[in-house]
Amino acid sequence: MAQRAGVPLSAVKYYQREGLLPAGARSAPNQVAYGEEHVRRVRLVRALLETGGLSVAATKDVIAALDAEAAPLARTFQVAQHAMGARRVQESAPSGAARARVEALAAARGWCVTSDNPGFEAAARALDGLRSIGFDPPQEYLDAYAAAAGTAAAADLQALSGRGERDAVAELMVVGTVLGDPLFAGLRRLAQQDATRDAFPAPARGGRR
Amino acid sequence: MAQRAGVPLSAVKYYQREGLLPAGARSAPNQVAYGEEHVRRVRLVRALLETGGLSVAATKDVIAALDAEAAPLARTFQVAQHAMGARRVQESAPSGAARARVEALAAARGWCVTSDNPGFEAAARALDGLRSIGFDPPQEYLDAYAAAAGTAAAADLQALSGRGERDAVAELMVVGTVLGDPLFAGLRRLAQQDATRDAFPAPARGGRR
Repeated sequence: MAQRAGVPLSAVKYYQREGLLPAGARSAPNQVAYGEEHVRRVRLVRALLETGGLSVAATKDVIAALDAEAAPLARTFQVAQHAMGARRVQESAPSGAARARVEALAAARGWCVTSDNPGFEAAARALDGLRSIGFDPPQEYLDAYAAAAGTAAAADLQALSGRGERDAVAELMVVGTVLGDPLFAGLRRLAQQDATRDAFPAPARGGRR
Repeated sequence: MAQRAGVPLSAVKYYQREGLLPAGARSAPNQVAYGEEHVRRVRLVRALLETGGLSVAATKDVIAALDAEAAPLARTFQVAQHAMGARRVQESAPSGAARARVEALAAARGWCVTSDNPGFEAAARALDGLRSIGFDPPQEYLDAYAAAAGTAAAADLQALSGRGERDAVAELMVVGTVLGDPLFAGLRRLAQQDATRDAFPAPARGGRR
């Protein structure tokens, strides 16, 4: 099964030990049969845990949400979002001022969101961090980030609409939410280097600045 | 000093033990004097290490880059980007196909970047993760993310241009790079909830769907 999923055997054993995989059907005393569903689950766990960097506990929560077949997809999504928010639990709460600023930003864009959306805390904490080094982001900075987030979220939803089956939609919801972050972060590094080149030219070898 | 920086004393002691802070000037047998520069450094370390989630080693690299006064800012930026890329070192290399796709995306946008930009690996790895669950992102999905990244990077550079002093620019470069990720991620969670609400309505309490 590890081979079929394209995942090292040691990783599959680890997932099993951590209770992240359903048991296979025992087909012979020394053999366990795994179906396509198992292979798919192994790939999902790998995407969340290794590529996405979720903790084992958060991955468990996300999988439980996916397995709650009766739950509406909006609920699956919420659980997944919270599991991801819990990635760094030791963090202190953001300041009230930063939180209020993110709330105002969401309201200005007409986003209809619940106050327990973990995005409020994540964004507010980032604002606190920027303020701590003396950078109080101007409104146009926040507007640009909010516009970027809106563009990405629209693409996320567009991608979901192309997946017919409920399980496939739910899987893409959670993996897309987790992996959209590093996808954006990677592309931002590239765009930054391009923009920085003009603003802060590196000393050219030929002496040109 | 901890009080002036707004950071718990235990945290300052930890930073000192880890070699993240310069030594203060010994002003009396039992007393060490810390200047404004120390306070500022404590805030910076906190922003990178706690809000940004960098490792101690990566934080050290970033600080060393900041302290290399003679280095051009573009170089400081590169070191900082790499330090952040090293956050999860155990990750395997992305597939050649995914890397080629990110390269094509950057080329299509006319981004002038070096092949060692860590953004290539981060974005390519995310693409591999998405493919592993059967989602091969269509071009419009990648274009949307690249556009979002371009918008954010332009705002980043705009913010830098407002900071006069070299140290302040360099600080914002690294902290902005680190904290722009969770800022965007938080805002994307909010935008997603708004978009999801229309596409996958949660069952309303009053029975309305």
